[in-house]
Amino acid sequence: MPKVTFTTDDTSVDVRTGENLLRAAMMADVAVTASCGGGGTCGKCRMVVEEGTVEAAPTSKLTAEQVAAGYVLGCKAQVTGDVAVGIPPESRPGAVPARHHAERPHNVTLGAEEHLERLPAFTVTAPVRTLAVEVAPPDLSDNASDATRLAHALRRAHGLEDVTYELDALRALPAALRGGDWNVAVTVDTTEGRAHVIAVRPGADTAPDLAVAVDVGTTSIEVALLDLAEGTTLAQASEYNAQVGRGEDVINRIISAGKRGGLEELQRLAAETIGRLALRLCAEAGADPRHLASYTIAGNTVMTHLLWGIDPANIRTEPYVPAATRFPWVRASVLGLPGGPATLAGATPCPASWLGGDIVAGVVAAGIPWSERLTLFVDIGTNGEIVLGNKDWLVACSCSAGPAFEGGGILHGMRAAAGAIEQVRVDDATLEPTIATIEGAKPVGICGSGLMDAVSELFLAGAIDRGGHFAGDRAGTRLRAGDHGFEYVLASAADSGTGADVVLTEVDVENLIRAKAAIFAGISVLTESVGVETAEIAEVVIAGGFGHYLDLDRVIALGLLPEIELERFVFIGNSSLLGARLAALSGEMRDTARRVAEMMTYLELSANALFMDAYVSAMFLPHTDTSLFPQTEALLRGRSHAERAV
Amino acid sequence: MPKVTFTTDDTSVDVRTGENLLRAAMMADVAVTASCGGGGTCGKCRMVVEEGTVEAAPTSKLTAEQVAAGYVLGCKAQVTGDVAVGIPPESRPGAVPARHHAERPHNVTLGAEEHLERLPAFTVTAPVRTLAVEVAPPDLSDNASDATRLAHALRRAHGLEDVTYELDALRALPAALRGGDWNVAVTVDTTEGRAHVIAVRPGADTAPDLAVAVDVGTTSIEVALLDLAEGTTLAQASEYNAQVGRGEDVINRIISAGKRGGLEELQRLAAETIGRLALRLCAEAGADPRHLASYTIAGNTVMTHLLWGIDPANIRTEPYVPAATRFPWVRASVLGLPGGPATLAGATPCPASWLGGDIVAGVVAAGIPWSERLTLFVDIGTNGEIVLGNKDWLVACSCSAGPAFEGGGILHGMRAAAGAIEQVRVDDATLEPTIATIEGAKPVGICGSGLMDAVSELFLAGAIDRGGHFAGDRAGTRLRAGDHGFEYVLASAADSGTGADVVLTEVDVENLIRAKAAIFAGISVLTESVGVETAEIAEVVIAGGFGHYLDLDRVIALGLLPEIELERFVFIGNSSLLGARLAALSGEMRDTARRVAEMMTYLELSANALFMDAYVSAMFLPHTDTSLFPQTEALLRGRSHAERAV
Repeated sequence: MPKVTFTTDDTSVDVRTGENLLRAAMMADVAVTASCGGGGTCGKCRMVVEEGTVEAAPTSKLTAEQVAAGYVLGCKAQVTGDVAVGIPPESRPGAVPARHHAERPHNVTLGAEEHLERLPAFTVTAPVRTLAVEVAPPDLSDNASDATRLAHALRRAHGLEDVTYELDALRALPAALRGGDWNVAVTVDTTEGRAHVIAVRPGADTAPDLAVAVDVGTTSIEVALLDLAEGTTLAQASEYNAQVGRGEDVINRIISAGKRGGLEELQRLAAETIGRLALRLCAEAGADPRHLASYTIAGNTVMTHLLWGIDPANIRTEPYVPAATRFPWVRASVLGLPGGPATLAGATPCPASWLGGDIVAGVVAAGIPWSERLTLFVDIGTNGEIVLGNKDWLVACSCSAGPAFEGGGILHGMRAAAGAIEQVRVDDATLEPTIATIEGAKPVGICGSGLMDAVSELFLAGAIDRGGHFAGDRAGTRLRAGDHGFEYVLASAADSGTGADVVLTEVDVENLIRAKAAIFAGISVLTESVGVETAEIAEVVIAGGFGHYLDLDRVIALGLLPEIELERFVFIGNSSLLGARLAALSGEMRDTARRVAEMMTYLELSANALFMDAYVSAMFLPHTDTSLFPQTEALLRGRSHAERAV
Repeated sequence: MPKVTFTTDDTSVDVRTGENLLRAAMMADVAVTASCGGGGTCGKCRMVVEEGTVEAAPTSKLTAEQVAAGYVLGCKAQVTGDVAVGIPPESRPGAVPARHHAERPHNVTLGAEEHLERLPAFTVTAPVRTLAVEVAPPDLSDNASDATRLAHALRRAHGLEDVTYELDALRALPAALRGGDWNVAVTVDTTEGRAHVIAVRPGADTAPDLAVAVDVGTTSIEVALLDLAEGTTLAQASEYNAQVGRGEDVINRIISAGKRGGLEELQRLAAETIGRLALRLCAEAGADPRHLASYTIAGNTVMTHLLWGIDPANIRTEPYVPAATRFPWVRASVLGLPGGPATLAGATPCPASWLGGDIVAGVVAAGIPWSERLTLFVDIGTNGEIVLGNKDWLVACSCSAGPAFEGGGILHGMRAAAGAIEQVRVDDATLEPTIATIEGAKPVGICGSGLMDAVSELFLAGAIDRGGHFAGDRAGTRLRAGDHGFEYVLASAADSGTGADVVLTEVDVENLIRAKAAIFAGISVLTESVGVETAEIAEVVIAGGFGHYLDLDRVIALGLLPEIELERFVFIGNSSLLGARLAALSGEMRDTARRVAEMMTYLELSANALFMDAYVSAMFLPHTDTSLFPQTEALLRGRSHAERAV
């Protein structure tokens, strides 16, 4: 990855190719002014390229002389290789904050391919495979049936035992064998531990052998098209889950499913989204969707129920009983997914109502089933799912964090879409923010990661106290009394995309604290239940879309995650999709997912007294028990000193 | 069974209740005149009841005085209990033949229930069962999924392991559990050796638990409705296979299947016949056909292919390769059979192209898989299927006998339907016949058993020689020169139902000899192949509709069956349906059928030199090698003496 060195601050950061300099500066905690969110309209985030080059978009905010002298707008300058950059004084909002605990590599989300290297080697054995088989022609001395002959050939050439036949395949067999001069392409379903022949066609041509891996999220659905012969991903795409219009979260989806025709509609909507993505990917790859071997689907328990057309009603009410934890393989057409007659669909198992196949897939993708080391797996969302363990044991829980992490229940909260403020830095002295929005669009709201950044920054800057209240004595242009008590102006009407101020209220802060307290309490209960200290955790795996621009120091300062050495954290992005990919490719991986689901001990927190205690204790910033956050406390003490110094 | 004693002849015979006295006399080889076939129109078969009573229909052929004196028409007098009968001189055609080898019990077909007693005890375990299951309700301390809870209950209460679910059943489960207050009726499919839940409904009401067993013959289809709870047969019915219009035999069916849309039509026709019978039986039993658990179907390999919709084309041509020997269990609706969504259909396996599931079912029904004794199983038909072996080994062959046994290729041949002459006795001196027709209708033709009786009688009476030619020196009113050489008048135009003579030609005799030679040659090849003598055969099981009025002495005299002590023969009727019933009732029986199909060594006779030799040797009456038939030879010598004496 290219290294960006900020000479003025004597610091550097590794970023992806294509990242812009404003983002790089924010990651490196280099203070730069930016009030438009990174769209190039405020013209404030000027930088000077001193060594190397960047790809800078033309801008009216800089004169020709400035450009000639190496000036660029940080938000419009893309990193293409190592580069050294200076920050001119006019780009500085004020004093430079020093919020990092220590020198550390920045949290870069591992790409799926990088991540695969962490896993043990596996054989590519798709649940459904098409094999070229040469069958011995019969004569009078050996006139065993066509089905017997093919079974023998499958055993000899592919080691498949106990071959059975789907009726359609049996019906096609005599003509296929003779039409292909005793060479046939045979599609075999091994999902039930047997070799079940589901399609036969004449000739030895088995290509293309494609499969689809799917992460069905409550909000969005991500699909990967896989080449089973090579074990590679050909293309990947995502879309909002079309169910979104029938309720934002799983609870509302369950309610919608309970209405007349609701279940069928939700089933159809999710299947249509998956189908649309799959067809698009097939079209891009020039593949015939009728040749898809399988869909391997990972989703939370409610999403999986809905997609399989099973009413999830009882998940919602005590004692929270799912209809199923394992879901049968079915013909893709049964779910309304595109494919041929032999295309199957399967789901990773869901251990409990609030612990789904997405988490099982994620735990597999994180390599925990092969790891000797104590690992904490955290998927942060409306439901925070937390798993602790190693290859020998796993405990898990799910805690309802509420919708704050997804921008829900926040006055100007929004999903992670264009114009959402997703990165925030706050000047300690002036409380002036530097913001970056998704796609650099004008700020229209704040998403989860922006919210965490903002609250953490304001807390570390002394503008929010341990109880989550704004410090009235810091009021000014940015922090002010509003309709609902104090509020903080993230983007003024002049800079925003809505024509109105984008603000953060005290209620927003309180909602975020509730959310982070739930996650932290869940982690506490798991560690306590098995009698380990957080210090013993060798690796913390952060799953989910979160983490792209999430700053670990800040997240820890909020008290969302335990204060563990930063080197032990790893971000693996959409681990659900990664796990689904693995399960689509390999029988060993499918077996591992089943084993993971079975070995997970699920702790039901809804009636857990330990959890309630831990939750109440975590309702402070960072926590009631300050001894758990020594480095954050040291930062806070440092800030107090600085304030006193000012 | 009632005993009929013929006082004039000092002999007796056991017959079924309802049998008429003419039939009883023919079975007992008591000579009685009857030229109308048993319809009461010729009025010749008068008898006098001396002890006991019979149920005699009124007739104009007897005066009131005669009736008062105990006279009855034999063909119109039904046996209701033990009875002693005298034959008045006017009913005698001539001298009494003495054709029996020895005193012996007459061949009475074993009823299915009688036969079951020969088999080892078995547990009734239908392939598909509906079980009443009480499931533990969940609470917060145990909130495992509905599917897991039911699986636990199925294991605890019914010993079922590895429970899997059909998607429809899973979809129905949550509501069924709660609707039935945690009591459900669960339909479980165990056909693949696993416990697969295919339907769930609320409440503990599992009745009715019904299944259907089917024998799909080329000519007719017989269906039994079974009560799975009791293991009993509720009702049974048969009909012509509606495929008959598309070809008389399997070869013509295969040809029809090869025509455009032919396979689909034949599939549908057979399914419609089965469905019609099943619906009729359900209606009679007051059962809802949607509650049928399964259809268990036994048929020859071609019939099974056609019913499963698999093209049997390659069975017809060398090297005679069937598409399949095992047929997957499918939803009954897939085959177009009536039932509910959980009704399955399965077939007994077919070991080879010319050795079907009907024979496998028959071998199981005959008890051979449990027998230490060397057993010969013979199913006589267009294709004679022969199995030799015991519980440890089985060899089998199939020989094409041609259609003679079913009346095909015979000038006045016909199927076993009303008016078919099925029993014939011939007076040695006058060659006058006594005939009995099916349903006592006026004679219109001759069926297989009548043909065998006629040829055997004429051979033993010296009217047919060892080469199958009529003895011209015996010509008279009955044996005469016809258009196609000599012919024998079975029924004259005056007595027949057609208004023309019903005759037997020399070509007819030749066709029967070809047919019997094929069967005998098959038996010879099997015994030679394993190096045993026919004398070592401890039991001969005769399967099929044949045997009702078939006289073993006469069949042996033809050289159709080897000359073995008559006590060793057993007739078991429709052993295919009996085997299907067993397979429908019990998993052990299904496993046994599978084992039988796998252990059978099939000898392909079409290119077998031994067979050709044996066939040519068997083209005489009874055989070229007279040493094989010492008792028949003794009879023939006795007849010569008698002739000389006359």
